Amino acid sequence: MTVGVVGLGLIGGSIGLALRDPSRSVVGCDSNADHCRIAKDRFLVDEIVPLEAVAKADIVFVATPPSAVPALLAQLFDAKGQNTVISDCASVKGPIMTWVEANAPTERCFVGGHPMAGHEKSGPAFASAWLFRGAKWLISPAKASSTTALRTVERVVKDLGATPVRIAAEEHDRHVAVLSHVPHILAGALVTAAKDLGTFDASGGSWKDLTRVGGVDPGLWTDIIMQNSEQVSIALEQVVGMIGNVQSALAKGDIEAVRSFFEEAKRAKK
Amino acid sequence: MTVGVVGLGLIGGSIGLALRDPSRSVVGCDSNADHCRIAKDRFLVDEIVPLEAVAKADIVFVATPPSAVPALLAQLFDAKGQNTVISDCASVKGPIMTWVEANAPTERCFVGGHPMAGHEKSGPAFASAWLFRGAKWLISPAKASSTTALRTVERVVKDLGATPVRIAAEEHDRHVAVLSHVPHILAGALVTAAKDLGTFDASGGSWKDLTRVGGVDPGLWTDIIMQNSEQVSIALEQVVGMIGNVQSALAKGDIEAVRSFFEEAKRAKK
Repeated sequence: MTVGVVGLGLIGGSIGLALRDPSRSVVGCDSNADHCRIAKDRFLVDEIVPLEAVAKADIVFVATPPSAVPALLAQLFDAKGQNTVISDCASVKGPIMTWVEANAPTERCFVGGHPMAGHEKSGPAFASAWLFRGAKWLISPAKASSTTALRTVERVVKDLGATPVRIAAEEHDRHVAVLSHVPHILAGALVTAAKDLGTFDASGGSWKDLTRVGGVDPGLWTDIIMQNSEQVSIALEQVVGMIGNVQSALAKGDIEAVRSFFEEAKRAKK
Repeated sequence: MTVGVVGLGLIGGSIGLALRDPSRSVVGCDSNADHCRIAKDRFLVDEIVPLEAVAKADIVFVATPPSAVPALLAQLFDAKGQNTVISDCASVKGPIMTWVEANAPTERCFVGGHPMAGHEKSGPAFASAWLFRGAKWLISPAKASSTTALRTVERVVKDLGATPVRIAAEEHDRHVAVLSHVPHILAGALVTAAKDLGTFDASGGSWKDLTRVGGVDPGLWTDIIMQNSEQVSIALEQVVGMIGNVQSALAKGDIEAVRSFFEEAKRAKK
């Protein structure tokens, strides 16, 4: 089996590393020359080849920021091999699926995907063969996706150590807005708020956990948030509404309202 | 050495367990009979005794919700032994120090304290001898605290595996509002927001980390937040302001403003 990876950052690099095996040949490309060099030095792929050659692989993963995916899919659809299956790894699925349905509605080879795995550090230097072990890998089929394409993607996702979980693109974007995008925004706001405290560090374990992803790659995350801006806005409004309730409870000294907030959270956590 | 523990929850129980040793005798009390039973069953203390007897120990830790501390200090100051040193473990220091300075301004035996360690589960059933290992233990001396009392508390804190770090009570409350209290509120808001997503679980690692403390004990945390309401309000306003900037950037499609937010967070994280 030949595996192609477009975009050799943390995710693409980890896919390559995890799938390199005597039974497979992994080829990759990246517009960033540093990524290509590191991918080669770290043996994340067997070979760096042009996009047109990556397109001939049995399965191709596009692992770039979400807004770059449609243009790459257009190139891959043009250059792909007869049995090539194509998937992506973008954290936002709606715009990509909308583009596919508008521009390549009969392409049966494409299946949307999104590994729920990552790291607070980005780039191929942090790629790890273990990144996807035990993680969910959300799979959003397009209307035209063939059963073969779907099965191939799910099989390779399992080879990566992840569990494929099917979810419609719209549902996907609503879920990840709450479960990933808004949390990253809150983590960012927290670390920025702490800046004013100076160098004295009084933090404990909860701070470490809550701000682990507080310094993620601005370029990638701006793209993710903008691509999912509608669902992120809805989720942010919901969270800000709850925080606002706590704020007015504090202003009024309303103990019961604060208690209700924590009680609702405890029930929800269960 | 005799150690006394008032309040045998997660923190008090862990203090007892960590200090039980042939060279020490640990006694404790709790108004909650279940806590006493579990503390006895799990050997968290050597003996359950009345508060008046706990007060005779060489060092007494008050490990109750913050609002309960002043009344207990009043009782302990009345009943204490000649060389007893007393500290507390409350997450908010201002109101306690204000009370001490107003009601016991000449008590040299008291030193405020706050272990930056905890767990998403509360109660003596989760007490662990390892809870404080590697954690900071913030120490806020009162105006009258003797050097002996301060040194004794710091020595025992080290015996617990923690690192004592001195900080004035006011500074303490400002720091923990940002580093602990607001993060707990955000975690609570996140888990509550996710309730509407139903049972489908698309979460990844960042969600797990960001919501670990999302279901903490409502009684304790209401008390903590109310006791530190001023600093928590200031920190919440700051965080809500930053989230508001992201919200209006999303509404306007202002990519640069979203990028600035993530770039500032990345700089702050460093």
